[in-house]
Amino acid sequence: MIKARIVVTLKNGVLDPQGKAIEGALGTLGFDGVGSVRQGKVFDVEIDGDDASAAEAKVKAMCEKLLANTVIENYAVEIR
Amino acid sequence: MIKARIVVTLKNGVLDPQGKAIEGALGTLGFDGVGSVRQGKVFDVEIDGDDASAAEAKVKAMCEKLLANTVIENYAVEIR
Repeated sequence: MIKARIVVTLKNGVLDPQGKAIEGALGTLGFDGVGSVRQGKVFDVEIDGDDASAAEAKVKAMCEKLLANTVIENYAVEIR
Repeated sequence: MIKARIVVTLKNGVLDPQGKAIEGALGTLGFDGVGSVRQGKVFDVEIDGDDASAAEAKVKAMCEKLLANTVIENYAVEIR
């Protein structure tokens, strides 16, 4: 069993209204000195087998096909 | 300017219907050997100043107050 963590973040230049809302809410709560906030997604996936490089290739294919919208999002895969 | 990454994940035992839906979709797409999928959130926050430990304390306070629901979610802070 191999565990992989995938972090999907918006590309630079893509507007992030959710992040902006959080920025505003943090200001309202009294947190000052907060620059930009960007929100992304994380997926923890368990893959059967013991071959880390095969698992990584599989996870990358999942990202391309389903988990990330590569037009506006970047993804990073970490095998743990 | 200090950059922090916050990863918010559901605690063990908390149902994750979104993760289950992704699991099903991956099966439909022909990815076999996929165990559990759990979805979480990631926040990239920029904090003014150069004091990493002060920034970390501030970010943890943000998590407690706004970014994570500590009843059902865990959070991890990484200063980068």
